[in-house]
Amino acid sequence: MTTLSPTLELACELIRRASVTPLDEGCQQLMMERLAACGFTVEPMNIEDVDNFWARRGGEGPVLCFAGHTDVVPTGPLEAWQHAPFAAFVDEEGMLRGRGAADMKGSLAAMLVAVERFVADHPLHRGAIAFLITSDEEGPALHGTQAVVERLAKRNERLDWCIVGEPSSTSLVGDMVKNGRRGSLNGHLRVRGVQGHVAYPHLAKNPIHLAAPALAELAGEHWDAGNAFFPPTSFQISNLNSGTGTTNVIPGELNCLFNFRFSTESTVEGLQQRVEAILDKHGLDWQVDWSLSGLPFLTEPGALLDAVSASIREVTGRETVASTSGGTSDGRFIATLGTQVVELGPVNATIHQVNERVLASDLELLTEIYYQTLVRLLAN
Amino acid sequence: MTTLSPTLELACELIRRASVTPLDEGCQQLMMERLAACGFTVEPMNIEDVDNFWARRGGEGPVLCFAGHTDVVPTGPLEAWQHAPFAAFVDEEGMLRGRGAADMKGSLAAMLVAVERFVADHPLHRGAIAFLITSDEEGPALHGTQAVVERLAKRNERLDWCIVGEPSSTSLVGDMVKNGRRGSLNGHLRVRGVQGHVAYPHLAKNPIHLAAPALAELAGEHWDAGNAFFPPTSFQISNLNSGTGTTNVIPGELNCLFNFRFSTESTVEGLQQRVEAILDKHGLDWQVDWSLSGLPFLTEPGALLDAVSASIREVTGRETVASTSGGTSDGRFIATLGTQVVELGPVNATIHQVNERVLASDLELLTEIYYQTLVRLLAN
Repeated sequence: MTTLSPTLELACELIRRASVTPLDEGCQQLMMERLAACGFTVEPMNIEDVDNFWARRGGEGPVLCFAGHTDVVPTGPLEAWQHAPFAAFVDEEGMLRGRGAADMKGSLAAMLVAVERFVADHPLHRGAIAFLITSDEEGPALHGTQAVVERLAKRNERLDWCIVGEPSSTSLVGDMVKNGRRGSLNGHLRVRGVQGHVAYPHLAKNPIHLAAPALAELAGEHWDAGNAFFPPTSFQISNLNSGTGTTNVIPGELNCLFNFRFSTESTVEGLQQRVEAILDKHGLDWQVDWSLSGLPFLTEPGALLDAVSASIREVTGRETVASTSGGTSDGRFIATLGTQVVELGPVNATIHQVNERVLASDLELLTEIYYQTLVRLLAN
Repeated sequence: MTTLSPTLELACELIRRASVTPLDEGCQQLMMERLAACGFTVEPMNIEDVDNFWARRGGEGPVLCFAGHTDVVPTGPLEAWQHAPFAAFVDEEGMLRGRGAADMKGSLAAMLVAVERFVADHPLHRGAIAFLITSDEEGPALHGTQAVVERLAKRNERLDWCIVGEPSSTSLVGDMVKNGRRGSLNGHLRVRGVQGHVAYPHLAKNPIHLAAPALAELAGEHWDAGNAFFPPTSFQISNLNSGTGTTNVIPGELNCLFNFRFSTESTVEGLQQRVEAILDKHGLDWQVDWSLSGLPFLTEPGALLDAVSASIREVTGRETVASTSGGTSDGRFIATLGTQVVELGPVNATIHQVNERVLASDLELLTEIYYQTLVRLLAN
């Protein structure tokens, strides 16, 4: 058996800790010990049943934070795996295998090893380096990054740049970074009618008949055209229910759940007003309960995106693509601090699936990309 | 306590038998004994768990049949009644009270007493008188009138005219008769899409979004204008369901139950074709399972309607209104024999409710109307 690199060695140690959300199983302890050993002030922030920590090394000046999560999604049926999910090994094709290899213990190992090397090479770096690590990103995430960010905001902790280790790459490491995410806005629409017998429709008001033209208009509406960074805002009805199962009764109410994934070209208030105007236009007796899952965030080209792109180009020869596609991530919480946030991690092809794996050599490249970014932003 | 009239006496005897569907509790036995006593050939037709009978008196010539049901709907909560539902008595305001007083034991008593008087007065009447009585009109009705009619059809039983004792009157006895009923056609529509994540709508096909414009068009469609006897055909969606309850999943299928109440201006095939054309026009991947609950029937002005109208005028001084409004009735089965069918019974204000009641004097008038109709149609 060949000796593993420091990044792969640490990645295997982390994968072997079966830290299914919200468990951490000692992953953070391991990371905190190594960070403390190279001069970080380490601060556990365990909130309710969630382990988190904040670590910082350095003085005045700009702060570059590495963020991520030690929790992994459940394995699913063990018999569907070709190997034990928490065994952690590099196979004959050079793939590091195990739950969390791609999402995101490989990134955590790469960040930590890159920082260790950078601190050794540049002990008097400018500014500060930080880590914000949670064990609940895949779960409810109420007591994870969001709660840590609230504490950091209260004490005015400076946080200029943040690299989140989410697996952003699509087929080759560094081919894509995420420089933002769309917002997510949910609505629960109730349309009231008047219940009655189908044989006497003139005595009833059918909420399905009344709502159908409004739903058709909402489904066909052009909300915005997106912009250089965001695709157009999309509207999707996920659930529509009316009726009791009885075939001779006109129902009295219709219920509908819908979701917006919205760009920075639309605002929460603007979308709400437009939906409500359409409902009013169709003369409906309606009520909408709104709930905001996340505001959109965007990191425009600047110091962080430039440093990341240049480091990817230097290490891999590739021009990275900055994208805001996909679901939400913890980046949206960190961005509320005014921080430039970029997600940069390995290829996401197998995340949340059985036989999760990542090319071992990609983690070496990722370590080097993180290192070069540190050099660009914090080397004196 | 004053002595009750023969009609009220018999109505009370029937009401005191708690014949909740499909029970008969001896009502039919009582009726058959009295019909046999005045010369009827009586034929019980018990089919599965349902008691029915057919009775006939007379020879060649036209046949006038009285049809009805001995079963009643459940009482609902007893504490909501002002009196025991099966007690049967005439209160101080002259109302006969009890479950079935209006629907339709009052009518059964009036028919039977009218026939007894007519046979006594006209023992050598022309044609024949018949009774078709079931104990399952309020329930599934599969083994009731429909099954008896099938047997009668098989043996080519002649049946020219039929009076169904359903409570057709709205505020005064005889103010309305039903000379037909709309048809009822059910459809179960499935629209298929492609399930997916709300954050990636381009990879999914939302069946709610696809179906909404088609449902709006169906709801707004003008199916026919009705005619002198029928209101326009109406279309109602009774149930609409799509989605799993999860807010971030675009559903893969939409299910919809709808119902037509249709006039004789539309056909089953015509309505089906028009619905399917609208679904095709919107490019849907659809499937409809159709089920026909009942064809429309219509008794146009003729011997039966003339005799009934003239009798109502003679007894009450009122001009009756012939209507086809409301739900379906067993009349639709009898009409398939080519029979002229009219529904004529007491005021329906309290049917299927607690404290069901009917004006006792209305049952006397109803007895007289039935008697006069017998005279007009069958007296020599």
